[in-house]
Amino acid sequence: MTALIDAYPSRQGSRPSITPRKDPVVHATDPGRGPLSADKVERYAREGFLIFERFLDASALAVLRGEMDRLWDNADRADPAVIREPESDVIRSVFDVHRRSRIYDRMVRDPRIVAIIEQLLGGPVYAHQSRINYKRGFDGKEFFWHSDFETWHVEDGMPRMRAASVSIALFDNLPINGPLMLIPGSHLHYVACIGETPEDHFKYSLRRQEVGVPDIETLCHLVKEGDGIAAPAAPAGSLILFDCNTMHGSSGNMTPYPRSNLFVVYNSVKNTLDAPFGGTKPRPEFVAGRDFNPLVPA
Amino acid sequence: MTALIDAYPSRQGSRPSITPRKDPVVHATDPGRGPLSADKVERYAREGFLIFERFLDASALAVLRGEMDRLWDNADRADPAVIREPESDVIRSVFDVHRRSRIYDRMVRDPRIVAIIEQLLGGPVYAHQSRINYKRGFDGKEFFWHSDFETWHVEDGMPRMRAASVSIALFDNLPINGPLMLIPGSHLHYVACIGETPEDHFKYSLRRQEVGVPDIETLCHLVKEGDGIAAPAAPAGSLILFDCNTMHGSSGNMTPYPRSNLFVVYNSVKNTLDAPFGGTKPRPEFVAGRDFNPLVPA
Repeated sequence: MTALIDAYPSRQGSRPSITPRKDPVVHATDPGRGPLSADKVERYAREGFLIFERFLDASALAVLRGEMDRLWDNADRADPAVIREPESDVIRSVFDVHRRSRIYDRMVRDPRIVAIIEQLLGGPVYAHQSRINYKRGFDGKEFFWHSDFETWHVEDGMPRMRAASVSIALFDNLPINGPLMLIPGSHLHYVACIGETPEDHFKYSLRRQEVGVPDIETLCHLVKEGDGIAAPAAPAGSLILFDCNTMHGSSGNMTPYPRSNLFVVYNSVKNTLDAPFGGTKPRPEFVAGRDFNPLVPA
Repeated sequence: MTALIDAYPSRQGSRPSITPRKDPVVHATDPGRGPLSADKVERYAREGFLIFERFLDASALAVLRGEMDRLWDNADRADPAVIREPESDVIRSVFDVHRRSRIYDRMVRDPRIVAIIEQLLGGPVYAHQSRINYKRGFDGKEFFWHSDFETWHVEDGMPRMRAASVSIALFDNLPINGPLMLIPGSHLHYVACIGETPEDHFKYSLRRQEVGVPDIETLCHLVKEGDGIAAPAAPAGSLILFDCNTMHGSSGNMTPYPRSNLFVVYNSVKNTLDAPFGGTKPRPEFVAGRDFNPLVPA
């Protein structure tokens, strides 16, 4: 590997900063080529996310839910890819599900999804990460506001902003069960955080993040500029697609209604991982995959 | 004081239980006498809460907000009535505000509110508790599901269910800023909790409650029977009135929008406090007042 210039320094200064994004949001040379309409592409570029209601039908959903339960039941206590809630022993997430489940492997390679992502990121992509977030009723704690890219850059060595995430709602996203919240337009800014990354940060950051967290003043600024917060109430089977740098989070879930979702990160094969820009050793494969082979649609 | 029979035992067994309420919800001999329509009274009896949108106008609201800020600014570190968030030093609640503020004293004795409460509880009432819940943006953590009556009975010696709470929204109750959630019909059941009450429980229960918390199975049962959860999105100045035994709570507030409210508990003068039924010493005056003089409308 050749040493790369750090285009997005973070966790280096004693003050947070906000700077303009240096990469395009839509990387395609011909963004009209693909399943998304020009209007959708333009909206994604402007707001940083898109919602596809009822992307999956009931039978596909039932299969994904069954597989979710199977992974829960088979979760091994010693498995580092099984993450528990910060205040209890309840499973919060299981990572690397596309390599642990043939069903999720196929879902991640769903031709409709791959085509959308390739249209936006301009060519072949690979899976950087996959996971089930269980977000169970009563126990599911919040995910505080964050840009995924900040972490992937600092802790995983993702050089540029050329990745996107997909969250598939396995149950209804209701206003009351801690739905995904996004700040429209936030992806156009890079928020550098304060604090130094400890070694093996992932061992607790996946339960509750405390470094790589944006400051409140900047969050208020982004919310004001983006004209608020989007918290789409999306029925089960819906798909939410968002840019790697869109500021997002979710509140805890105190209701009996689970808000489980399948979460997949797609990264361009032209943006593969280098050494982490924060200087720590790379995170394990289950959270930041280094198999850069392009996904083959299933 | 004569020893009273414990009509609602809790925190005594090793298993939770759910039993029918032994008291009426509407105590008036002539419930038609008062400001509430028969329809409203009937709905309160059935669902356990009522919402009055925009009960206060903008100028009244501005005064209450100003007083809220004044109490925040003047909060004394040594004052036990100032409660802080469980994970930070940020103020969560200031108690006993009707005795610390002439403005809140008048608000608590608002003739319209007193008339409504007297109609439902059948005669004169006094203030059992008052507080500002700040529920600030980013910092405001959840209030887990609970029946207030359970705590007031066990820890304060409130004999029967003849009390009601009023929450006045000082800012908008949005779907995303941790609005009050209630379980319709839950007030018709008494949920006995497990666990023993430690001495000086209030010193941490007001930050985060861990004893006097209903079990999850019972909560699911109540939600199912009550046909869901109500989370009314109410604009600033709205008033939510609920029975002392209505199961309620609120999620954390991760948004920049505060969800501050003025919270007042009215108890019938025919239901004054005895020794705590849990056997602990009474909680301090700031959380459970023992001035049983009827409120005089301001």
